[in-house]
Amino acid sequence: MSGAIEKGKKRWRAGVLGATGMVGQRIVQMLAQHPWFELTEVAASERSAGKRYADAVRWHLNEPIPEEARKLVVKDVAPPLDCDFVFSGLDSSVAGPVEAAFAKAGYPVVSNSKNHRMEPDVPLLIPEVNAGHLASIATQKKNHGYESGFIVTNPNCSTAGLALALKPLADAFGIEQVHVVTMQAVSGAGYPGVPSMDILGNVIPYISGEEEKMETEPRKLLGHWDGKRFVDLDVRLSAHCNRVQVLDGHMESVSVKLKKKASVKEVREALRTFEVDDELAGLPTALRRPIVVAEEADRPQPRRDSDAGAGMAAVVGRVRACPLLDFKFTVLSHNLVRGAAGAALLNAELLAARGLLDGKAGKDLAT
Amino acid sequence: MSGAIEKGKKRWRAGVLGATGMVGQRIVQMLAQHPWFELTEVAASERSAGKRYADAVRWHLNEPIPEEARKLVVKDVAPPLDCDFVFSGLDSSVAGPVEAAFAKAGYPVVSNSKNHRMEPDVPLLIPEVNAGHLASIATQKKNHGYESGFIVTNPNCSTAGLALALKPLADAFGIEQVHVVTMQAVSGAGYPGVPSMDILGNVIPYISGEEEKMETEPRKLLGHWDGKRFVDLDVRLSAHCNRVQVLDGHMESVSVKLKKKASVKEVREALRTFEVDDELAGLPTALRRPIVVAEEADRPQPRRDSDAGAGMAAVVGRVRACPLLDFKFTVLSHNLVRGAAGAALLNAELLAARGLLDGKAGKDLAT
Amino acid sequence: MSGAIEKGKKRWRAGVLGATGMVGQRIVQMLAQHPWFELTEVAASERSAGKRYADAVRWHLNEPIPEEARKLVVKDVAPPLDCDFVFSGLDSSVAGPVEAAFAKAGYPVVSNSKNHRMEPDVPLLIPEVNAGHLASIATQKKNHGYESGFIVTNPNCSTAGLALALKPLADAFGIEQVHVVTMQAVSGAGYPGVPSMDILGNVIPYISGEEEKMETEPRKLLGHWDGKRFVDLDVRLSAHCNRVQVLDGHMESVSVKLKKKASVKEVREALRTFEVDDELAGLPTALRRPIVVAEEADRPQPRRDSDAGAGMAAVVGRVRACPLLDFKFTVLSHNLVRGAAGAALLNAELLAARGLLDGKAGKDLAT
Amino acid sequence: MSGAIEKGKKRWRAGVLGATGMVGQRIVQMLAQHPWFELTEVAASERSAGKRYADAVRWHLNEPIPEEARKLVVKDVAPPLDCDFVFSGLDSSVAGPVEAAFAKAGYPVVSNSKNHRMEPDVPLLIPEVNAGHLASIATQKKNHGYESGFIVTNPNCSTAGLALALKPLADAFGIEQVHVVTMQAVSGAGYPGVPSMDILGNVIPYISGEEEKMETEPRKLLGHWDGKRFVDLDVRLSAHCNRVQVLDGHMESVSVKLKKKASVKEVREALRTFEVDDELAGLPTALRRPIVVAEEADRPQPRRDSDAGAGMAAVVGRVRACPLLDFKFTVLSHNLVRGAAGAALLNAELLAARGLLDGKAGKDLAT
Repeated sequence: MSGAIEKGKKRWRAGVLGATGMVGQRIVQMLAQHPWFELTEVAASERSAGKRYADAVRWHLNEPIPEEARKLVVKDVAPPLDCDFVFSGLDSSVAGPVEAAFAKAGYPVVSNSKNHRMEPDVPLLIPEVNAGHLASIATQKKNHGYESGFIVTNPNCSTAGLALALKPLADAFGIEQVHVVTMQAVSGAGYPGVPSMDILGNVIPYISGEEEKMETEPRKLLGHWDGKRFVDLDVRLSAHCNRVQVLDGHMESVSVKLKKKASVKEVREALRTFEVDDELAGLPTALRRPIVVAEEADRPQPRRDSDAGAGMAAVVGRVRACPLLDFKFTVLSHNLVRGAAGAALLNAELLAARGLLDGKAGKDLAT
Repeated sequence: MSGAIEKGKKRWRAGVLGATGMVGQRIVQMLAQHPWFELTEVAASERSAGKRYADAVRWHLNEPIPEEARKLVVKDVAPPLDCDFVFSGLDSSVAGPVEAAFAKAGYPVVSNSKNHRMEPDVPLLIPEVNAGHLASIATQKKNHGYESGFIVTNPNCSTAGLALALKPLADAFGIEQVHVVTMQAVSGAGYPGVPSMDILGNVIPYISGEEEKMETEPRKLLGHWDGKRFVDLDVRLSAHCNRVQVLDGHMESVSVKLKKKASVKEVREALRTFEVDDELAGLPTALRRPIVVAEEADRPQPRRDSDAGAGMAAVVGRVRACPLLDFKFTVLSHNLVRGAAGAALLNAELLAARGLLDGKAGKDLAT
Repeated sequence: MSGAIEKGKKRWRAGVLGATGMVGQRIVQMLAQHPWFELTEVAASERSAGKRYADAVRWHLNEPIPEEARKLVVKDVAPPLDCDFVFSGLDSSVAGPVEAAFAKAGYPVVSNSKNHRMEPDVPLLIPEVNAGHLASIATQKKNHGYESGFIVTNPNCSTAGLALALKPLADAFGIEQVHVVTMQAVSGAGYPGVPSMDILGNVIPYISGEEEKMETEPRKLLGHWDGKRFVDLDVRLSAHCNRVQVLDGHMESVSVKLKKKASVKEVREALRTFEVDDELAGLPTALRRPIVVAEEADRPQPRRDSDAGAGMAAVVGRVRACPLLDFKFTVLSHNLVRGAAGAALLNAELLAARGLLDGKAGKDLAT
Repeated sequence: MSGAIEKGKKRWRAGVLGATGMVGQRIVQMLAQHPWFELTEVAASERSAGKRYADAVRWHLNEPIPEEARKLVVKDVAPPLDCDFVFSGLDSSVAGPVEAAFAKAGYPVVSNSKNHRMEPDVPLLIPEVNAGHLASIATQKKNHGYESGFIVTNPNCSTAGLALALKPLADAFGIEQVHVVTMQAVSGAGYPGVPSMDILGNVIPYISGEEEKMETEPRKLLGHWDGKRFVDLDVRLSAHCNRVQVLDGHMESVSVKLKKKASVKEVREALRTFEVDDELAGLPTALRRPIVVAEEADRPQPRRDSDAGAGMAAVVGRVRACPLLDFKFTVLSHNLVRGAAGAALLNAELLAARGLLDGKAGKDLAT
């Protein structure tokens, strides 16, 4: 880790693609207080480009727009930008080629979009789960002829909390089957997103593409990079995805079948005591213990627990035996923090700590 | 079936125990328009007894209090009452001995309470599912020395829709495993029930005793009476029960493992074409086809579909393959109608049609 | 009134402009059961034109799309259409010239849009309030050179219930000042309308243009046609308009200053006993007593009372003295029925009863 | 002001009466971080007395129970208690005599309850509005024979924000009439409080006793102490109180008639620039500018703005001319902070700063 980090001085300049969207706004807001990263560029669609950020954005967060962001002029979502790397909160309808263009132009791309997640040489990264996947970046660069640029992604918002909760179980006992039913918050659909006419007093039992993501992404996340390719974990998953009248926080009713025999107590302890190593614990956005096990019989609850660990914790409750698979529990995580903006930030921090943001991106502009 | 029924004249006099509660109110309201049953008695706790019903009840339904109920004087929940049979919407804290006392006193008791549901000689009845269980009544009478009285129960509100949707699958393909995650409406908790401070913008992942009921009641419901005892269906169930911010209508994400191989199309057709026989179809509250299969990708939804079939339908949607068990789907049913008041009414209608309400109950009072 | 009406046979063929919108859908649904009007044409924007109605519309009502509407092919919103008159639920961005074109082409236009409401020769009509304003139609025709066509409008959804409640007070006591604060339902904003991100657990104290309408429309509604022009009632109004998390039903906290002295009892009685004459009471959508006075201290409530009088009643509650003006009360009315679709229907019925729909519109197409 | 305050050392020991209630919990939580006050006693009803606080309380706040409170044993709500003064969050059914008993026993009582608010020698205090009312304490002591004890109250939760917003207008222009319509949060009704069955998708146009408080308390708050008695401000008020589906934050649509002519700009500036003096600004819970004027057309909103100024700000928006009175605006304040717990804390801080908590209360116990 470089000296600059230790001194706590902001060292890397960050751009945000899709900065006016719901996830982009969260990233902009989280960067304002960030010890390592300085926000130097915001980019968005043509409609916004050329305006000052404060004028272009319809701001949704309770905290005000950070001062350093207000004055930035929104750029087009195309290289070059004056920064060392970019976050991408782009809509999936445009993210694919744009992110590739930035990688090609030398920028590390830390993406929240789905487009490149399942590619055979792109890390789908949750640092606490599969930091080892970063080894694939070298192959990615070679495959695409990238020089200093590359793409790293984080999973879908409903996958994030699930994969985190499965990690200690996979490590300790092995997992064979996972059945998950989600109750997802409206903020996961962006803005304007879910019309109030649809969700008031209601549940919508369908979210386009969501079940497919939940049934595939955890296999890659919990798998490993064998030096040449990702080897999925051999686990079967089934997901039912529902939208509920909640603002933030995805709830999931999970049943798992393990490889090894275990007691409810052992499962609960594996979750409760799960810790990351010192490298990860030193990242600004990381928690030493990213899984919180709720004691009360009726927790977690999205309104009361989504902000646990500043939104980066997966809160698990009601660990008990399942008459069908082996165990069941409820897991909650903040879809915009652990499931999107915070996930991307943590990924960027790991890249920074490992020296992967020290390429030439933006250097020509900066000088 | 007696001539009286065919002529559409009200023939049986009904009492309602727990008439001021949420379920009791629904029964009172449904009786007002009933072609066979006349409401002659309302009974409730000491606090209400002696008052006129209109003064004793805090009415929650949008329809006004029926005229014939307004003027009734609330009686104690003890025999004798001036009626041929009683509905019981009593709280489970008191229902057990009270219902037994009415049966002892000669009254058929059509109960929505949980207390007697799992007893070895009490039918847990959904007419469309297990009308044959009524044969157990003779044994029940003998066991308890009841003369004309007996107890019949309907299942828990979250079990009702599930069991109905499982019935055609059990018949056509056999079922081995069922995994169900509920998203239940607040009206299921009665009044005042769930505090708004707990449920606004929230999900509560726990409902006391609910999962246990859902994991046992369907086994009895889908089993058979062998002449001496109930033989459960050999199916394993696992339930996660959640409370959501919905007024009426329990949603359930269901996965099932079948005994026989089937296609998604065959499963959907088995659900869609499920019909009851002429005896059942002739009951006033019955639907010829009690399962409605929604065509749209995002249905059923509680606010939009709970009233399907006047609240007596189970609405099924999103029938598809399950990567873990065999098939998955969503089922919705109205917790206060199909899951409580309507269920009790339908049970009473079947009893009436089979001559089981023609005992001596209340006859001494009536003359 | 013509013989055809008395026989209950559908006699007039109706077209609906903007038939795929929220108000248009309600009109289509209400026409399905209508004794006088037959739906023969649906028209909407270019995007929908040419499709069958069932394919073009995203249907929001709980009742299914009426059979006779499903099969209709959506037409452009331009004359000619095969009908005797048109309803207009068009967006105000296009309603102005389109409605004028239909009037020019010979069609009576019964409009819910704001565009022509305040014009000096267009009736802003609530039959129970100002049926006499229909006399202005002759002037309107002359002014614009219309032959059989003309335009009649109904007021804004938040004005409708207020004006109806003010009518008996204006008649009995005279009104000088009205202060109104609204709590309006999300369905008033159409679909997709209010994003759930904005309204969940929230109140929005602003609805564009709404306060201006509420401060002017009642003056015209409660005024009179002097043979040449509308003379406004000399009443001053002030409105605060808020959006709340309610599906249907606009609540309004109203304070009024009267011209004559009155007691709370007299005011309540004037509201409670307000009746329409036989001509109006004979219209299919009319109520003999369109104002319902709630007895309970905590009513009206939108979820429980919006459907009073099939959505055509104004429900008034809590009539009491106001320490500032003279009296205050709460009024609720269904924004999509009394405030839009039902209002238009009632207007058309009055036109029909008075022979004003018997022009030549569509006659050439029909033969 | 004493040296102890300046050194920032906790100096006064506080007890909380009604510590398990909604307001009591907030006070307990706010005391945990308080620079001057140390929580030494919690008292509640018999049901809780004798238990440890963590076991007795059903905790509703998102922040965990403070460590120093968890271990405290709940006492009866009767003197003596080991503290220098008490906060009272008692229910009004018991607060009257209990608070008097504490005053009699020598304890300054800082009460949120309504019981003593309107008494002729009890300050109804908002420090930013009427700090001068503290002069009445000497009279109160004499009247009741209190030695070191006395009672100070804060206004009703819906009055607090209104009175604060009216203060600069009363100072600058004089106020003659105020018309206010509230849209109040469910947390104002305590726990379990408003049943979800009542408020989901609904508005309730009635809150018992609330309108009366709003029509009288501001007269006292904005009046003055003439050395012998409180002289009310001569202002007439009218209130309509509604409950809406919001968690925290009371919204109010306000119209005011001023004594002096003013422009919208002058009114807005009077609100925007309202500042407290140095004594008040130095209190830990105080804001130099307790009124925030929102710029956006659609603010304030309860979900987004209730926490402004850590919940102690009154957020005013939409200042504009009123066609009926002179001006109208929307004001929002956090009902549990500015309207209850924070209000009481601020009152206690002012008492502390003026040496009014330095009596003998609890001194005998403490030594």
